[in-house]
Amino acid sequence: MANICLILEFDGTAYAGWQVQANGVSVQQVVEAKLAELLGAPVRLVSSGRTDAGVHARGMVANFHTDRDLPLSAYREGLNRLLPADIAVREARQVGEDFHARFAARGKWYRYSLCLTPVRSPLQGRYSWQLRAPLNAEAMAEAARHLVGVHDFAAFRTSGCDARTTVREIFSVDIQAEEPLLHIDVRGSGFLRNMVRVMVGTLVEVGLGKRAPGDVAALLGGCGERAGRTAPPQGLCLMEVWY
Amino acid sequence: MANICLILEFDGTAYAGWQVQANGVSVQQVVEAKLAELLGAPVRLVSSGRTDAGVHARGMVANFHTDRDLPLSAYREGLNRLLPADIAVREARQVGEDFHARFAARGKWYRYSLCLTPVRSPLQGRYSWQLRAPLNAEAMAEAARHLVGVHDFAAFRTSGCDARTTVREIFSVDIQAEEPLLHIDVRGSGFLRNMVRVMVGTLVEVGLGKRAPGDVAALLGGCGERAGRTAPPQGLCLMEVWY
Repeated sequence: MANICLILEFDGTAYAGWQVQANGVSVQQVVEAKLAELLGAPVRLVSSGRTDAGVHARGMVANFHTDRDLPLSAYREGLNRLLPADIAVREARQVGEDFHARFAARGKWYRYSLCLTPVRSPLQGRYSWQLRAPLNAEAMAEAARHLVGVHDFAAFRTSGCDARTTVREIFSVDIQAEEPLLHIDVRGSGFLRNMVRVMVGTLVEVGLGKRAPGDVAALLGGCGERAGRTAPPQGLCLMEVWY
Repeated sequence: MANICLILEFDGTAYAGWQVQANGVSVQQVVEAKLAELLGAPVRLVSSGRTDAGVHARGMVANFHTDRDLPLSAYREGLNRLLPADIAVREARQVGEDFHARFAARGKWYRYSLCLTPVRSPLQGRYSWQLRAPLNAEAMAEAARHLVGVHDFAAFRTSGCDARTTVREIFSVDIQAEEPLLHIDVRGSGFLRNMVRVMVGTLVEVGLGKRAPGDVAALLGGCGERAGRTAPPQGLCLMEVWY
């Protein structure tokens, strides 16, 4: 029995998220169907986590067990020929029998991209949140520093989050310009539902001057104050998962 | 009678090119229809040139005459509300009565993007040519230097090109890496049909070692030798037009 780990890249525009669900086609569903075609048997993928509808990934990690003894190239070249243009396997590795893509994950890097052109940009709109307003990046960086560390992020999740504890560790929040984009790179041990998107929505309110940078610290007390709006999905990309 | 000049950005994926034609919807057609809606009268756009089906633009220039006296913001904010997500007006200016977007153009900058990831990349595929093979960028740069200057580019056009003369001036061809992309920036006074895409196809053959850099000089004699294949449209973007 081999345990195979895949690193997947996908454009999430057309999908109802990673996880199989009732409404719409999910990325997991498409990959499982094509794997079943390749292996001649049903396959169940275990992923490093879910991504929401419309969110992209450059490094989603998922593993599965199989008793077929195919060369690893079958999972890269072979599976890539079967998958649609908006999903691809970047790497396939054989991993130890106990490897579990979710439980073994030690950290994740998410990138959120804001587009700062004065009018909407058709060439950036698919992979960014178009704000059409100048942002104070320094104020955003000051606010972002409060988010780093071990905190109660209860204010930064959305309804439907069923996590037992809301304490998470954020390793870093880096804001860097790549004209006309502003990237917010968030690295952490784990994330609550929509946590990165609520963080970004909050940082954007700071960037727009609607909230002071120091206000972000108050949100981390878990005392019920509300964070900002949830940033739209198409600006978010799961870049990497560490094990 | 005002002469209005628009700078347009569009994602060409869904269009049969800039120019109105029988098969498929063109960008020009969509912009003219929305302008007619805005102005309450039919409008004919004069553009800096055509772009082929699937080619993108960040700075397509087009002008039109109108006797309506609308503020310029109507052509930016107003028209952008009417246009679909894959087309936008970046700027609108009032220009002199004689301004003609095609005849007045002094030069153009095209960018062609190659994607060099070892497997196809769903997040880059919409705006690049995915080669999945390493390229010798130094050999390509050497070949590119031969293209700069005033030359007969007859070997670098495709059938259907009805230009009276095939002599053009190329100001510069710059190759620069932006991982995982390799951009080929071509600036010149004018271009034959598919000229940039044939240039890129030829430079890629050099990068793959299928053609020596010096061979490119021989193609410029106009003596009938054949240039490389035409690179696919989705890697090409009209960046800017100078007047």
